[in-house]
Amino acid sequence: MIVILKEHPNPKQLDNLKAWLTSMGLKIHESDGVNHQILGLVGDTSRVDIDLIQALDIVEDVKRIQEPYKNANRKFHPRDTVVTVGDTRIGGGHFAVIAGPCSVESEEQIVGIAKAVKAAGATLLRGGAFKPRTSPYAFQGLRATGIELLLEAKRETGLPIVTEIMDLSQLNLFEDVDVIQVGARNMQNFEMLKELGHLHKPILLKRGLANTLQELLMSAEYIMSGGDCEVILCERGIRTFENYTRNTMDVSAIPALHTLTHLPVIADPSHATGRSAMVRPMALAAVAAGADGLIIEVHNDPQHALCDGPQSQTPEEFAGTMEKIKQVRKLLFDGNGGVE
Amino acid sequence: MIVILKEHPNPKQLDNLKAWLTSMGLKIHESDGVNHQILGLVGDTSRVDIDLIQALDIVEDVKRIQEPYKNANRKFHPRDTVVTVGDTRIGGGHFAVIAGPCSVESEEQIVGIAKAVKAAGATLLRGGAFKPRTSPYAFQGLRATGIELLLEAKRETGLPIVTEIMDLSQLNLFEDVDVIQVGARNMQNFEMLKELGHLHKPILLKRGLANTLQELLMSAEYIMSGGDCEVILCERGIRTFENYTRNTMDVSAIPALHTLTHLPVIADPSHATGRSAMVRPMALAAVAAGADGLIIEVHNDPQHALCDGPQSQTPEEFAGTMEKIKQVRKLLFDGNGGVE
Amino acid sequence: MIVILKEHPNPKQLDNLKAWLTSMGLKIHESDGVNHQILGLVGDTSRVDIDLIQALDIVEDVKRIQEPYKNANRKFHPRDTVVTVGDTRIGGGHFAVIAGPCSVESEEQIVGIAKAVKAAGATLLRGGAFKPRTSPYAFQGLRATGIELLLEAKRETGLPIVTEIMDLSQLNLFEDVDVIQVGARNMQNFEMLKELGHLHKPILLKRGLANTLQELLMSAEYIMSGGDCEVILCERGIRTFENYTRNTMDVSAIPALHTLTHLPVIADPSHATGRSAMVRPMALAAVAAGADGLIIEVHNDPQHALCDGPQSQTPEEFAGTMEKIKQVRKLLFDGNGGVE
Amino acid sequence: MIVILKEHPNPKQLDNLKAWLTSMGLKIHESDGVNHQILGLVGDTSRVDIDLIQALDIVEDVKRIQEPYKNANRKFHPRDTVVTVGDTRIGGGHFAVIAGPCSVESEEQIVGIAKAVKAAGATLLRGGAFKPRTSPYAFQGLRATGIELLLEAKRETGLPIVTEIMDLSQLNLFEDVDVIQVGARNMQNFEMLKELGHLHKPILLKRGLANTLQELLMSAEYIMSGGDCEVILCERGIRTFENYTRNTMDVSAIPALHTLTHLPVIADPSHATGRSAMVRPMALAAVAAGADGLIIEVHNDPQHALCDGPQSQTPEEFAGTMEKIKQVRKLLFDGNGGVE
Repeated sequence: MIVILKEHPNPKQLDNLKAWLTSMGLKIHESDGVNHQILGLVGDTSRVDIDLIQALDIVEDVKRIQEPYKNANRKFHPRDTVVTVGDTRIGGGHFAVIAGPCSVESEEQIVGIAKAVKAAGATLLRGGAFKPRTSPYAFQGLRATGIELLLEAKRETGLPIVTEIMDLSQLNLFEDVDVIQVGARNMQNFEMLKELGHLHKPILLKRGLANTLQELLMSAEYIMSGGDCEVILCERGIRTFENYTRNTMDVSAIPALHTLTHLPVIADPSHATGRSAMVRPMALAAVAAGADGLIIEVHNDPQHALCDGPQSQTPEEFAGTMEKIKQVRKLLFDGNGGVE
Repeated sequence: MIVILKEHPNPKQLDNLKAWLTSMGLKIHESDGVNHQILGLVGDTSRVDIDLIQALDIVEDVKRIQEPYKNANRKFHPRDTVVTVGDTRIGGGHFAVIAGPCSVESEEQIVGIAKAVKAAGATLLRGGAFKPRTSPYAFQGLRATGIELLLEAKRETGLPIVTEIMDLSQLNLFEDVDVIQVGARNMQNFEMLKELGHLHKPILLKRGLANTLQELLMSAEYIMSGGDCEVILCERGIRTFENYTRNTMDVSAIPALHTLTHLPVIADPSHATGRSAMVRPMALAAVAAGADGLIIEVHNDPQHALCDGPQSQTPEEFAGTMEKIKQVRKLLFDGNGGVE
Repeated sequence: MIVILKEHPNPKQLDNLKAWLTSMGLKIHESDGVNHQILGLVGDTSRVDIDLIQALDIVEDVKRIQEPYKNANRKFHPRDTVVTVGDTRIGGGHFAVIAGPCSVESEEQIVGIAKAVKAAGATLLRGGAFKPRTSPYAFQGLRATGIELLLEAKRETGLPIVTEIMDLSQLNLFEDVDVIQVGARNMQNFEMLKELGHLHKPILLKRGLANTLQELLMSAEYIMSGGDCEVILCERGIRTFENYTRNTMDVSAIPALHTLTHLPVIADPSHATGRSAMVRPMALAAVAAGADGLIIEVHNDPQHALCDGPQSQTPEEFAGTMEKIKQVRKLLFDGNGGVE
Repeated sequence: MIVILKEHPNPKQLDNLKAWLTSMGLKIHESDGVNHQILGLVGDTSRVDIDLIQALDIVEDVKRIQEPYKNANRKFHPRDTVVTVGDTRIGGGHFAVIAGPCSVESEEQIVGIAKAVKAAGATLLRGGAFKPRTSPYAFQGLRATGIELLLEAKRETGLPIVTEIMDLSQLNLFEDVDVIQVGARNMQNFEMLKELGHLHKPILLKRGLANTLQELLMSAEYIMSGGDCEVILCERGIRTFENYTRNTMDVSAIPALHTLTHLPVIADPSHATGRSAMVRPMALAAVAAGADGLIIEVHNDPQHALCDGPQSQTPEEFAGTMEKIKQVRKLLFDGNGGVE
């Protein structure tokens, strides 16, 4: 971190600043420019509040050189993290597709879809038991029953399951869930992130609607600072002025995150676009940009889904999409068909 | 709600749609346009998922006429809600200023600031005990001790206290807190909103960084659907491309919300701008636009605050700001000095 | 267009409204809902100002059913437009890559790059003669000389040229330019769009930084309403809160525009990301999403480019990118190698 | 400007960089940090392309200390610029209201409104002759005739006139126009800005829909670098995700610009909100935040305006708004009634 001082700083304030920085264990390397004196801070600056320093009367500007995240930082962990869930691996050249309905509705529905997506090549099953809905009057999910039905589908198909937690009070229901999803609206629910970091279970962390990549990585850092928890990052669309699509899928987040972090990065074209006809082209775009996986909504009868029908593919459409995904993966990234 | 059908809809699908709408208790009023048949839905459409209908093959477009919120809707409750907290009232012509430090740091600090802001005319005390921080390495607040210190400041000054809850597991600590704040990052933490609705305590609900006014009102609706809970809405800046200010304070949200809802609307110029020099002009702008109150950060020593120093005023600056606020309120809105 | 009236509209105002709508050549089809009377407008509603109707006292809401663009609308022109430039075609299954430096700097530079990109498979040469720069102190391009050098490179290689016009006063210099580019900042320079529509020359229209897809299509409509001009649309990144990339490339604009319009759609991964390392993955993402072409910056010596160096590829990198592009095109879209 | 080098930079590349910087007339002040060598650049860095340096292999990061604008920079010109137009002054404590219709429609209309707004206290008349409309099918303004009618209204009332130029080819028609307006869509029409800088006439420069404050100031710099031209800056709403209002009026731009520049800053609540009921509260908010003036749409018959009716006030509403504006100005800023 570099602190650029204003011209002729008040000496007493400067002494205070240096004392405070030293008290945080930092070493200060001073250098005099022509107009501006510069303090270079050496040590672990991830604890330093850049906004606070910026506000000081004697400071012209501050520049962070070291990223404020450590566990998630590729600079300190150059090798790709490979997350293992049952027989599936994600990251480091391993590609996985998570598929399933928006909401779990019945045993027949979830088992049926699980079999269909497994047949098409998906290696994990998703399904919402607790549903974050904008309106209190909308269907809120089958909750505990939904998780039981997911586990039933897992028993029938062998697919590990991924489902979203909305509050820590639900945590005891997630014991047998293979991957716990943190939704976009909870990306900065810091108390929950801290708790999840103690579980030693893979966490699927979705990017918030208006969160930067650095904020996403700081939220991953919250989870990772809890222990040896593995985090899968997920781009699912950001909020912009454009409203033809529900959100704007930031495909460039995929190569950007691969530069910044060693964690696997997947994409959710269903929620990002909110339109079933756009799922396939955007899934392929994410694969071409280097995504380590996808999460795709599949429904047996989109017109009668209790929620989010607009963005679901039918099993037939999904099977066609999987075929293309495998081909693009194979072409661009490896020799084994792209999907493990 | 109006459903515009595509030309020549499949008759069987149309029958299914009508049956489904009827099953939700809606009456259907059909009318034939020249190219497009139109279904007008009569009844409580707040439960209808507009995205789902939009996705149907036979539907060209859907238009919601009735807003999806009811308890918060001024159309159904034309009279301003007046929230009473101790001797203070907010809304319906009553104006209140909530002031205090970003974080509670010590008894001396919080009691000292409480006395200073009370002397300047503030009628509620704020202070963070649980702090939502982007980085896990930043100061997370004094937590339970912070709430005890706020209660001590309340005993010393008589000011009711406002502080933020970050997770339902903290709820038992908030029994004596007068107003519970839901922060921007938790605006769509629906499980928490539902629980808070059962408390019969005023809730200060901050607008999320990237949430529309309608979404803010839907979150108020979550709280209000729980019982007779009173909600104070707070504009605190939205995320835009401009980065000179920390966020962009949407002053127009104040008159807009006053049109849409009967709930009181306050503004937080400290967090919205992130710059102490901008707090006064933006506080006055909010007052001129009709805000029912303000929440302003005040610190005894901004240069040593543990967090968010950049946006805090000193007690002296705050007293000057209060003086101007009172004058503008008196000029524009009433004869009693603008602050109760 | 459907106009939903408020309950109990003033009869005189309603008569005025109907008379005004009729005077625009529209037929009015009235239908009575339970609470709301509805006017269905039949005829060419593209001239109707929806905001004006929305503002009337007696109007609850207005809903446009027909898109306000006609010439660019796929509904009225279902077949893909194929733009022909010399031996190159774009759209309707034909894919083209436009490559070259940000700015034309010298004959040696532009001819050298032209030969390199042609060898790698590009079919059009780009290069900036007039440069829109945020700062008046930055290099503004070689201007007329730049165009002469581009024409020299065209003579040497046979590649048609694409370059940006910044003001109508420059138009006489563009007589021999094959494709005139309208930059993002001029997307709503309506006087220029109108004039360009009279040229019978292909126009490359870049999406503005904060413009919706509908606005992009309305700008295409300005050009197309001038005559039989052909327009190539270009997604080049939109402005969002994320600042790791220079802009956020809206890859979903590609399939979205293909649904809405028959015009070819290309993407500019160089400007969208502002980072050379991201050009290849984002180019491939655009191809996978169905783009009809790409525009890619290539520089012989990125470290000494006079502008926009950060986003340029070297000829060697470009050749590698072209190889991958051809493979993905061939895999997903056709049997001829993907690039004509 | 400070250039932070990567560890162990290639010595030859470093020599090249230093030679290039020196060739631009900059002095280089080197200082060694612990991990990072730092180059401090001294001299006129406004010509240096920060993106270009950022892209170099040996550069970790670059930080601009000096703003890239000079003529518009308050640091170099601490005293407020006061723009004089006829008997009216704007800036430096002088407040002016520009009022009039969106479009000039007829002599009767523009003269009638001019008289009404003058009576209410406006000191400049606005009216659109050339209208930038999203749709080519919408009314494009009376053009040359519109300017003649504005001049007629000026003769009748003595009010100086403000109207928008859309293309340099229209410039000869603007000879007698007192203040030339550059609209939001042309804020980065750099060729036009350069030309206008030679006119020695005040320019009203509106902020683009998605432009930062720094970009606005760079566009002012384009104009000011042409000569002694005076520029009035105007906040008129930015594009965000919120769509209840047409745009989001960034009230905080007013105090922010007052810090960054000596130029006068006005606000346009009519276009920013797009709703006539919000014009008064947002006008007062802008005044309270320190605006040097306002531009307000007034129409004799909002329901029949040819464009932008939704955002116009009637003369009666405008007179009431003016009364409140004068009172707030007097209260907060001076003793002379707030409006000169």
